[in-house]
Amino acid sequence: MIETRLTRAFGLENPIVSAPMALAAGGALASAVSGAGGLGLIGGGYGDAGWIDTAFRDAGNARVGCGFITWKLAEKPELLNRVLEHDPAALFLSFGDPAPFAAEIAAAGVPLICQVQTLDHARQAVAAGARVVVAQGGEAGGHGATRGTMTLVPEVADVLAREAPEVILLAAGGIADGRGLAAALMLGADGVLVGTRFWACREALVPEAIREAGVAATGDQTLRSSLPDIARGLDWPAPFTIRTVRNAFTQAWEGDPDGLRQRPDLHAAYAKAAAQGNAEIAPPIAGEAVGLIQDTPGAAEIVTRMAREAEELITGGWRR
Amino acid sequence: MIETRLTRAFGLENPIVSAPMALAAGGALASAVSGAGGLGLIGGGYGDAGWIDTAFRDAGNARVGCGFITWKLAEKPELLNRVLEHDPAALFLSFGDPAPFAAEIAAAGVPLICQVQTLDHARQAVAAGARVVVAQGGEAGGHGATRGTMTLVPEVADVLAREAPEVILLAAGGIADGRGLAAALMLGADGVLVGTRFWACREALVPEAIREAGVAATGDQTLRSSLPDIARGLDWPAPFTIRTVRNAFTQAWEGDPDGLRQRPDLHAAYAKAAAQGNAEIAPPIAGEAVGLIQDTPGAAEIVTRMAREAEELITGGWRR
Repeated sequence: MIETRLTRAFGLENPIVSAPMALAAGGALASAVSGAGGLGLIGGGYGDAGWIDTAFRDAGNARVGCGFITWKLAEKPELLNRVLEHDPAALFLSFGDPAPFAAEIAAAGVPLICQVQTLDHARQAVAAGARVVVAQGGEAGGHGATRGTMTLVPEVADVLAREAPEVILLAAGGIADGRGLAAALMLGADGVLVGTRFWACREALVPEAIREAGVAATGDQTLRSSLPDIARGLDWPAPFTIRTVRNAFTQAWEGDPDGLRQRPDLHAAYAKAAAQGNAEIAPPIAGEAVGLIQDTPGAAEIVTRMAREAEELITGGWRR
Repeated sequence: MIETRLTRAFGLENPIVSAPMALAAGGALASAVSGAGGLGLIGGGYGDAGWIDTAFRDAGNARVGCGFITWKLAEKPELLNRVLEHDPAALFLSFGDPAPFAAEIAAAGVPLICQVQTLDHARQAVAAGARVVVAQGGEAGGHGATRGTMTLVPEVADVLAREAPEVILLAAGGIADGRGLAAALMLGADGVLVGTRFWACREALVPEAIREAGVAATGDQTLRSSLPDIARGLDWPAPFTIRTVRNAFTQAWEGDPDGLRQRPDLHAAYAKAAAQGNAEIAPPIAGEAVGLIQDTPGAAEIVTRMAREAEELITGGWRR
């Protein structure tokens, strides 16, 4: 068992948190992660109240948290109260200033987890009273920015050591197995937030053809761009872009995002492809870690496998 | 002491190799690294024969290797023989297909180290008979590509385990202290190649004002672009770009690289700024790891400090 400040603070057996991937991380995934001794987070994402209620219902009695895209939550702030009524194990915010929501979360007695992509974001998170800061590198699938996990984690660790030593630090971006977890601990993290590995698990709400396209890809085949956001008509603010696996759609528009902006007529086809699992148009929203993934087990097995591998490594198993 | 396949193969005390940074890694730096039990590499870079001879002379009797930019070496292939006459401890190639040079290096009995940025590059290196493959993430300073160290290292490790298990693997990109070294070992590397940390050491051939601008920067202030190459009139092939610290020059042209291409009249001013240490025009050629660097000790101290920190971490010191 790997004990860290994270496992002690949240009563976990393993320092592993599943990323609240919008639309992919529902109640079954989150509850399986929590059931295996990690912390599962529901992907509140773009803020559909009915979807979130369903996810909490599907999670049953498991202690799970919920995550939001901060700048989207700002458009529907009433959703925060709705989620807090579910008594989440944690409230996770990423991609925007958490300050406007901090007081309500604190008043509910719910721990705030803030994901950050820069040092300024980390200081914003601390100022908002975050109990946990997640330093997310650009290797990550889905939205993020450009810093690499290898440097962002220790640099944020140094900032926290000087300015807020009580804040717990997680690493995110490119972590899909025990090697990544063990490396994160060495870099100064108290645990990891894992997206892509859980995106490719049995419980993830991902159409099968899209999941298979993700599992088949290497890390070299991923791309950080704005293309899927343009195709969905989503106005993501800078500096956030979205990492996906390359497919026919991204190949067609990679050199011409402005051309895609002039084609709102393509939005419907993209939405249909995402819903129906057409991986040629709707790319797998997954990170460089797809290259480390060859199977689609259940989420509980992922948690126990990662923890076992990491424990072996940090107790000397790294030697070759 | 951290013993790995790298230390055994090269007779080192520490699994740390200094990057052959063009024009910055001369004989004093390389010999100091080797003297401290690592492996120092001279930066043969753009291929000035006189500069290389001087660097080997400055290295004295120390066992050092030499690195080349492969596509530049192809323009002056006679330099390879000249370096092999110095009996280097290793010959390092990065940024291009090593195949044309492999036979001559093998015939000289010199170990070939190939730095790679993608899985295809890794397979090219293996095909060329590389004894060591360096998986370089985009966090790195200077030239590189976009994969993150956190995923590229384990993914290349998996490729090597399947296809060439005898090949030694190093991690590069964003590694500047014992945390990075320990993390690299967990990811499956046998050691690390370190650039930026040695770029900011006493022996590096970097003008003081530029070095100071680098040490003062955070990782967030770095940028991967082609701007310095355009300003130097260097035709670097895709997918390679160069990471520097942002400065007035990069800010001015970041959004308009094509505009800079139309300004060959600026080349002379850029060259002068680089030579004279004007950090407003010639940016520090350093990676995201600048944010982990606050001092400019000697290279030997860097080696021993990194090794000591890493050993502490991998023997349980990571616990918080």
